[in-house]
Amino acid sequence: MKTKAVFYHAGCPVCVAAEQNVAAALDRSRFDVEIVHLGQSKSRVAEAEKAGVKSVPALVLDGQPYHINFGAGIEVLR
Amino acid sequence: MKTKAVFYHAGCPVCVAAEQNVAAALDRSRFDVEIVHLGQSKSRVAEAEKAGVKSVPALVLDGQPYHINFGAGIEVLR
Repeated sequence: MKTKAVFYHAGCPVCVAAEQNVAAALDRSRFDVEIVHLGQSKSRVAEAEKAGVKSVPALVLDGQPYHINFGAGIEVLR
Repeated sequence: MKTKAVFYHAGCPVCVAAEQNVAAALDRSRFDVEIVHLGQSKSRVAEAEKAGVKSVPALVLDGQPYHINFGAGIEVLR
């Protein structure tokens, strides 16, 4: 049975870059990867919080939250 | 050709947990994963800094740094 992996993001460029790289790097033969846009799926914010997510982008691997802070320069957000 | 993935850590329990989960979740058929203990391999700190690593644990995927902050309770560090 595959392990559940959920990548939560909010649609910002930093999140999307992390999603495209980190989430895409996971081994799909071992992980069921779901991408959740919390800005669009507000009903899932509670679920993310329950899993321990404090910020986005975050990856919840087998129930454990990992906050991914891309070391982005402010210029990315311009 | 496989993409290079380097996971930098410093041997703390939080780093090790992240290593065992995040680094292990990467698709080894697409990524050459290297684990670097910066506490033991101080000669590689400069390399990590050059890649943009500001804190550990961090994952450098194809040259891009991702800082992984596990939402650990203080009890983990006791």
